[in-house]
This record gives sequence, structure tokens and C-alpha cells, in this order.
Amino acid sequence: MFVHNFEIRVSYADTDQMGVVYYSNYFIWFERGRTELLRETGLPYKDLEKQNLFLPVVEASCSYKASAQYDDIIIVKTRIKKIGKSSIIFTYEILRKLDGEFLASGETTHAFINRDRKVIRIPAEIKTKLKV
Amino acid sequence: MFVHNFEIRVSYADTDQMGVVYYSNYFIWFERGRTELLRETGLPYKDLEKQNLFLPVVEASCSYKASAQYDDIIIVKTRIKKIGKSSIIFTYEILRKLDGEFLASGETTHAFINRDRKVIRIPAEIKTKLKV
Amino acid sequence: MFVHNFEIRVSYADTDQMGVVYYSNYFIWFERGRTELLRETGLPYKDLEKQNLFLPVVEASCSYKASAQYDDIIIVKTRIKKIGKSSIIFTYEILRKLDGEFLASGETTHAFINRDRKVIRIPAEIKTKLKV
Amino acid sequence: MFVHNFEIRVSYADTDQMGVVYYSNYFIWFERGRTELLRETGLPYKDLEKQNLFLPVVEASCSYKASAQYDDIIIVKTRIKKIGKSSIIFTYEILRKLDGEFLASGETTHAFINRDRKVIRIPAEIKTKLKV
Repeated sequence: MFVHNFEIRVSYADTDQMGVVYYSNYFIWFERGRTELLRETGLPYKDLEKQNLFLPVVEASCSYKASAQYDDIIIVKTRIKKIGKSSIIFTYEILRKLDGEFLASGETTHAFINRDRKVIRIPAEIKTKLKV
Repeated sequence: MFVHNFEIRVSYADTDQMGVVYYSNYFIWFERGRTELLRETGLPYKDLEKQNLFLPVVEASCSYKASAQYDDIIIVKTRIKKIGKSSIIFTYEILRKLDGEFLASGETTHAFINRDRKVIRIPAEIKTKLKV
Repeated sequence: MFVHNFEIRVSYADTDQMGVVYYSNYFIWFERGRTELLRETGLPYKDLEKQNLFLPVVEASCSYKASAQYDDIIIVKTRIKKIGKSSIIFTYEILRKLDGEFLASGETTHAFINRDRKVIRIPAEIKTKLKV
Repeated sequence: MFVHNFEIRVSYADTDQMGVVYYSNYFIWFERGRTELLRETGLPYKDLEKQNLFLPVVEASCSYKASAQYDDIIIVKTRIKKIGKSSIIFTYEILRKLDGEFLASGETTHAFINRDRKVIRIPAEIKTKLKV
């Protein structure tokens, strides 16, 4: 199964006073992960929006095992779990690069909608590209 | 069952270019909701930390039904779903104040740990206060 | 001179591992301050955008004197410093509510533009309302 | 004069409903810029904190010329402008990589303090390294 690896360094802005990354920031990493996966399949999300296709999140979850810390380089491993008629599910794993420690896993479900917020079927040519 | 209502207005910072609130920001509202619920039970989270008690998030999820938009006043309804030996689960509902539209629901699970990141049993006097 | 007071509580999300509010978050408070000032003058920013008027920031600065901390209620004091032909300057003071300690001051300059990003003169009826 | 170049891609989280990057997010890029400059001088900020040296921001400003947009790769050019007895000033320029367009410039002033929040003189060996 195709997996996309994306790396980013934890900034001070990401941390909270517990000395670790604040929990909602993992979802921003998930966004970066799926954006880069889509780019690699030949479907930059920016171009999808130009084609009047939007992928809002309808479900999101994250399970936290260990803490990402300031200045860690983390790896976001993104996969497509399922492609439905008008939805797509991505899964994510977050690891610390230095020692490979598994930090968190997550999942997001997205609807395909148009500018008028109507749910639409995934166009065939896009479905083909997503089935990498 | 005890429910705590908290209101906050959507800022421009909360929005993204889809013209709605970016999905990770709902988790910040969840934090505000549980903080105020804890305060109302007589357990301000700030004081818990002074007593060497920390409640990191171990699981978080959100289901998005409709979009919060700029300048909306939203209501965060927070409840305690379950108190375990050393964990607590909060649930959340997000509504738009103006028309009462249901926007999202979510859940967070927290471990009780001390400064050394050891999981600890919830002290009896705290458990009592939480069972409102 | 008209001053608008706005209160908000520091969330955990606002903090960083130095145990204080991360510096860029003060600018989000400034936004909340000017939004509420505008509302009080009868010009909710949301309505300005509906009238094809946008106020992007062209200059922003903040001077930090003391640290806002988790769970502090802070007060944002917002004033209009200057109204130009097609620009407006707001100033801000941030204080801790509990003891009145002065934490930070700042300033933002905004251009008036339309949807096509052209700079426009401030309409007379808006100028009148702003001169509170 | 030594200049450090850092690149990062604009995420959806960075944008607001005006379709551009929200103004406070430029300060997070500034942080990333100075962090990487410090690393390159042999002074990773993480190590400074371990040596009981902290560099809180005392002044920050940004001047916005054009808008960074979703999916742009932006370049942060960071320089040390001045090293005082117990302070340091960084300057920043933000450019769009694709066309080199100049988007914003900024400046941050930092005090050197210890864990007890006392201002301290910059140690000689650190001053030497900073004078690249």
C-alpha cells in the first residue's frame, strides 16, 4: 500500500506549557501529510479547488502514545485507507525521526463537495489517480 | 447529567480559505469547554497542575456536521462521560448560538499523570468532586 | 478618546514550553479587540466584508513587558489612533485582569481594499461611524 | 552579512477566509527562521535552554507587502541585526519562492534571561559564535 512520508520540525509555537506539542497541532501535521500525498499522486489539492472540488473533514481522530517535543523532526506517514463514492479516508502515523519512536496515529474522513457545498461523486479520472 | 455551557466567538484567526473554521480549532474549543467544566466542579486545572496532577490527552476525536463561520458565537457543551481509575473521558457538542444549529461533537480521553509522566490513580477527593 | 475593553481567558493552547503565552498569539487578541471595537461603533467587520470592504493588516507590532500565563483573564484595550484616506491604525494594550499588570502594547495598520484587492477611500458614512 | 534561508510550504491551517495567510502566522515563520540560523551558528536554541538561557521576545514587528497564499513555498531570510550586552535583534524577509516576490519583512528583539527570568549578559563564547 502506498505510503507518503513527510518530515517537519517541531517549532516553539507547537509546544505548550507541559513541554510537549499541544494536541490539536497533530491535526495540522495530518493536513500537511495528506496534502503531500495528494501532490505525489498528481492531484495537488490547490488544483482540486480550482476544479471546484473541496475536501472538508467530516471525521477526525488521533491517538497519542508518546509526546513530540520541541525541535524534534517528526515523520508523518500518510496512507489512503478507503475511497468511497464521494468520500475518502486517510490514516496517519507520527514518528520521531531520531529514534523512530511511534508518537501518534490518526485518521480523517473527507467528503467531496463543490463550491455550493453539495456532496458530489468523485470524478473517475481522480479516482484512478488516487488508486496508487 | 451535569453539562457545562461555554460560549466563544469565532475569530478571523480561526477561519481558513474555505470560509469556515479550520478543523483543528474545534479541539481548542474542547479544551476551553473542559477547563470551564473543571473550574465549575471546584477543580481549576491550573490548581491540579500545582498539585502535581496533569491530564494529557490520549485520544481525541471530532465529528463535523456543519460549519462554524466567522463571527458566529458558538456554544461548547461539555460533559464528563466516564471516570476511570486513572483516566477521564469528556464529550463535547458544538452549537451555533444564533439558531441552535448543531455543528460538531467530539470526545477526549485523558490520563492522570504526575510531573514524572507516571500514570497515577485519581485521588479520592478529586474523584468525588468530579462526580457532580 | 474611545477605548474598547475586551476580556478573554488564556487557554492551554496559547502557551508554549516557556510556560507563558507564545508571542504571536497576542496578535490574535489584537484582532479580537479591534473586531469588538468595530462592532461597538456599529460596523461589525462581517458586515464590512459583505459591503465589499476588507481591512488587511499592512503593519503590526507588539512590545512585550510581562508574560500572560495560563488561565489568566486578560483585558484587551483597543483604540483607534488614526483614520487616513484609505487606512486606519488601531492601538492595543494588554493587561492582566487580576492585578491590572500591564503585559503588552501593540499597533496594527490596515488598508481599506475591495474584493479585487484595490485600495479604496474609506466611504464617508463609515468614517463618520469610526469617529466615535 | 550572514543570512540564513529557510523554506516552508504554506498549509491550509495558515490561511484565513480572505484566502491569504493570517497575519500572526508570519511571526511563527520568523521563529522558524531564527531557530535555523541559531542552529547553523552552532547554537541550537534547544541547547541554549539546557544551559539555562532563554530568549523571550520583547519586541516584534512585521510589515506586509503582498500576500502569501495556500501552497506557496515561502523563503524566510533571517539575519542578526545587532547583538547587545543582553539582547539580540533578528531581521526577516519573506519571499515567495516561485517568483521571488517580496511578501513581508520583520524584526524581533530578544532578551537573554535565565530560568528565574533575570536578564543576563550574553556569555562570551555565545557572543563569539553569534558574530558569524
